[in-house]
Amino acid sequence: MSLPASVRIVEVGARDGLQNEKTIVPTATKIELIDRLSACGLQTIEATSFVSPKWVPQLADAAEVYTGIAKREGVGYPVLVPNEKGYDRAREVGVTEIAVFSAASEAFNRKNINASIDESIERFLPVLERAHADGVKVRGYVSTVLGCPYQGEVPVADVVRVAERLHALGCYEVSLGDTIGVGTPEKARSMLRAVAEAVPMQALAVHFHDTYGQALANIHACLEEGVAVVDSAVSGTGGCPYAKGATGNVATEDVVYMLEGMGIATGVDLEALAQTGLWLSAELGRSTSSRVAKAIASH
Amino acid sequence: MSLPASVRIVEVGARDGLQNEKTIVPTATKIELIDRLSACGLQTIEATSFVSPKWVPQLADAAEVYTGIAKREGVGYPVLVPNEKGYDRAREVGVTEIAVFSAASEAFNRKNINASIDESIERFLPVLERAHADGVKVRGYVSTVLGCPYQGEVPVADVVRVAERLHALGCYEVSLGDTIGVGTPEKARSMLRAVAEAVPMQALAVHFHDTYGQALANIHACLEEGVAVVDSAVSGTGGCPYAKGATGNVATEDVVYMLEGMGIATGVDLEALAQTGLWLSAELGRSTSSRVAKAIASH
Repeated sequence: MSLPASVRIVEVGARDGLQNEKTIVPTATKIELIDRLSACGLQTIEATSFVSPKWVPQLADAAEVYTGIAKREGVGYPVLVPNEKGYDRAREVGVTEIAVFSAASEAFNRKNINASIDESIERFLPVLERAHADGVKVRGYVSTVLGCPYQGEVPVADVVRVAERLHALGCYEVSLGDTIGVGTPEKARSMLRAVAEAVPMQALAVHFHDTYGQALANIHACLEEGVAVVDSAVSGTGGCPYAKGATGNVATEDVVYMLEGMGIATGVDLEALAQTGLWLSAELGRSTSSRVAKAIASH
Repeated sequence: MSLPASVRIVEVGARDGLQNEKTIVPTATKIELIDRLSACGLQTIEATSFVSPKWVPQLADAAEVYTGIAKREGVGYPVLVPNEKGYDRAREVGVTEIAVFSAASEAFNRKNINASIDESIERFLPVLERAHADGVKVRGYVSTVLGCPYQGEVPVADVVRVAERLHALGCYEVSLGDTIGVGTPEKARSMLRAVAEAVPMQALAVHFHDTYGQALANIHACLEEGVAVVDSAVSGTGGCPYAKGATGNVATEDVVYMLEGMGIATGVDLEALAQTGLWLSAELGRSTSSRVAKAIASH
């Protein structure tokens, strides 16, 4: 057990969160959200996704959002890029960091993009090559690392293989995502430990959804393994496309509260973050999923 | 680290939970709740409190509830008893297990019962003596073990002292409660470790509130220390009297999901428990605080 001294949080609320909310959020609100988040001290804020607007209408304003945000010194604003077309659109507005993604589950890939894992990776190879040539940083996401809505169990070996591949292809960091939130602490720990034998722990992040309430406990187990990058979404935005009404991403407020309480530095102003989350929840017309924000609001 | 092979859950929803709900629940509903909980496989179900009805009107029907429940073979139904008068009322209806309580915080005791910790323990000594003579089992609660709404920090030494005293006075089990839910995993771990130097781990339980969303992570850290008894409330009933609108007890459904996912046996039928929690939430006219129940309901 070696708890990290500090953790970098990758705030995914503006993309992973809003993408899975029913409400269509105005572009100006998205820009305000990201600017407020950077003012809270967050160092990495996933800004949007240059996916086809036909697929994800919530993020059709990707270019306007990216152009509109105040780029704060020292803050990274990665954007999701699914293919070369998305890469072109992202580069047109000056994006310097992208994220690519693949599931660890064959069934999930097959169902979602009608391709095997290997085929899906082949498809974004040109994006990776161009990013490398352009000096654009690339983050990799591996989804369904602890379970799949279609095939159920996902072999750890598959997670390791995909994570290793993304890292070998030049992703500076690979985020391991429990997309449907079914994992529990010791499964999360074993999976992370196995991946860390193939990819250095410093190049790994964990990404938990709180569908079954396990996210913080899973993060706790992974911190004990030494992971020092955690994805989360302010206010716990986003639901689960596979379970309507279920809880979404783990709330950044709750993650920061835990980390700071454990003596692990995050650089985040929790009070400002909680106020940002409460403001966002009001904009979305829903109550916050952050229990820290609820507690702070109740005082 | 030595995770236990099995965990006994002490279900506190019918007492700690309902006591802190705004809704007054009909006696018949309480009885149905407890009977449903025992049918789910829970071995210890805190049934009610024989506190003065003037103080806690929600539990004025303690005798009727206790009399009305179907006592299932092998299931314990402890009841809270604050003083000899409560003990008399409990014994009149055949109670065979009671629970007594003290805060670890001097300020909390002073504010709540206008007595020091030592004075408060003196006050229930006659109850402990009579219970011992009557062959009545006694469980002890120590509250405010990780923080106090009045004094803030609570020294671990105070927690150790109160827990040790309750154990020495004959409590077969001492439950350590983070009453206001402010604790984080490593603080919970250190506190438990310190107490376990004075009281055997087998005689300790942990009791977390999810006010700041930390309960499962805290339980995870305490399981690693070897604790094998966990208090929780179905549907996460109960709020926080010190933070209106905040989250209450950790939900039993979420605890069971985590434990079973870690390969730790609980003997609880999670599906039946989730249905019981959803039924209770409907009776209370509120949504469940269990994320597992939300996920199950959404399928």
